[in-house]
Amino acid sequence: MEPLPSWNDSAAKSAILDFVARTTANGGAEFVPPAERIAVFDNDGTLWCEYPLQVQVFFALAEVKRLAQQDPSLLKKPAFKAFLAGDLKTLTSLPKQEVFEPAFATHAGMTVEEFHANASRWLRNAEHPKLGRRFVANTYAPQRELLDHLRANGFKTYIVTGGGLEFVRVIAESHYGIPPEQVIGSSTRMKLETGEGGMVLRKLPALGSFDDRDEKVVNIALHIGRRPVFAFGNSDGDLAMLRYTLGGAGPRMAWYLHHDDAEREFAYDRDFRLSVFKDGLDHAAEYGIGLVSMKNDWKRVFAEDGNGRA
Amino acid sequence: MEPLPSWNDSAAKSAILDFVARTTANGGAEFVPPAERIAVFDNDGTLWCEYPLQVQVFFALAEVKRLAQQDPSLLKKPAFKAFLAGDLKTLTSLPKQEVFEPAFATHAGMTVEEFHANASRWLRNAEHPKLGRRFVANTYAPQRELLDHLRANGFKTYIVTGGGLEFVRVIAESHYGIPPEQVIGSSTRMKLETGEGGMVLRKLPALGSFDDRDEKVVNIALHIGRRPVFAFGNSDGDLAMLRYTLGGAGPRMAWYLHHDDAEREFAYDRDFRLSVFKDGLDHAAEYGIGLVSMKNDWKRVFAEDGNGRA
Repeated sequence: MEPLPSWNDSAAKSAILDFVARTTANGGAEFVPPAERIAVFDNDGTLWCEYPLQVQVFFALAEVKRLAQQDPSLLKKPAFKAFLAGDLKTLTSLPKQEVFEPAFATHAGMTVEEFHANASRWLRNAEHPKLGRRFVANTYAPQRELLDHLRANGFKTYIVTGGGLEFVRVIAESHYGIPPEQVIGSSTRMKLETGEGGMVLRKLPALGSFDDRDEKVVNIALHIGRRPVFAFGNSDGDLAMLRYTLGGAGPRMAWYLHHDDAEREFAYDRDFRLSVFKDGLDHAAEYGIGLVSMKNDWKRVFAEDGNGRA
Repeated sequence: MEPLPSWNDSAAKSAILDFVARTTANGGAEFVPPAERIAVFDNDGTLWCEYPLQVQVFFALAEVKRLAQQDPSLLKKPAFKAFLAGDLKTLTSLPKQEVFEPAFATHAGMTVEEFHANASRWLRNAEHPKLGRRFVANTYAPQRELLDHLRANGFKTYIVTGGGLEFVRVIAESHYGIPPEQVIGSSTRMKLETGEGGMVLRKLPALGSFDDRDEKVVNIALHIGRRPVFAFGNSDGDLAMLRYTLGGAGPRMAWYLHHDDAEREFAYDRDFRLSVFKDGLDHAAEYGIGLVSMKNDWKRVFAEDGNGRA
């Protein structure tokens, strides 16, 4: 089968296919050894829909009532108050880290296994309020094909997400073919507990790493230890990662997905506070980052029809 | 070739071969799917010699003079003072984290690339003061064969070390066949800097993670996200990791290497302050952890003859 069938025959598609061909041609001038073929992808807005709120924020919305009952002092925090009031306007006006705070709070006190089970249960059924389909149906078909094509050519594909590590791991293997050890993300601190049932890791109400902007590069160094050769993002939160990728010697490629498709998905960039795309958009060309237009470069957007069928 | 040729035909060798056969037999009752075949190894004292000081501490010894000239206040710290005096007695009486402090300090202010180059240069020539051979010659042949055997059977092999992430990565691929992304270890904090030459990560004089004891399990959760099925250590610092490994459902196996070979290497356990082996030794049987005797279970100890020849 021809690779990238959900991509239009555009310059972006040609450039990607050409890059993969050049870097994997044995004996070619731009050959990259298999061990160095590291590709990193942001998740929210790059691999699945993040608008009008990231999926994990919707999950937190569903969870946060339970938390506020346990600890009413949480209601003093603007993000929690806005959450409970369903006040999207306030939420989208707050800094990203603050908006994610309730999301991280929904982990606290649970073991890693409990959190995973809880998030899995929610993700099986929860629906996107505007698209009217399950959240998990909103992964992007062209990106899943791109991940497959990279892997078929010996690339190791990673997710590097501002979202929670364990949250994204719930769907990473089933939906993107990416195993848990190749998911890098935000994390809470954890504590090892030894009880009657053996050892468990309990999540603490304290942020370990907020995997956004520069921290994405730091975490790539900690988890991978190599500079990627291919990177894909969609917001200013990914800019450091894309520039870091392009900064190495030899062939490199980095892309931004531009959400310019109000018809099939959403059109947003500079004004989306929760995942601003402004510096990246203004300076992409200067930095050598390519722009993929959802509207023009993609033949098809979503990987599933909303009922779980591919 | 028969697997594990440097192991004597002991019960330990049979148990390992049997475990690998059982967990990889298609359709067998104890079959473990390839994606879940995670094996974790401590490094110092498990994969290479750590006595009378861990290799990275010797590296720090060589580096610390330069540091003390830059910042004389360091001399107030007991570990630094003992380092400069070559006072092994004091050093081995300090807590492990304190002894590693000068080692982490030797990273500070360098970029990741500079540190790597510096450590590589040192490791190419530096010699073990008692064994009279290069440090890199002191990896264990039986363990390298075990890593190979596990990988040949679809296991993904990881190092989970109290040593520094970047230090161990210098030799992990060349000596153990373990790529940088499968090395988990202690780390300093880092800062991303954007300068004329592009982006670099600079190491800060602050500990990020001290990957010892419970923290090994926390870091396994962060980096791998799966409970290992096979684990190997040699000290109390590995006990949490070994017990966590054994605590999962299905077939599991965990080993301790016991340094009881004063003739070919060293004999030490309870009294070695820098890597105490006491709780683990006393309770191994109770926890279901096997003991490998260097003296009795290994036909041969070191992988190289000291001149870099295998």
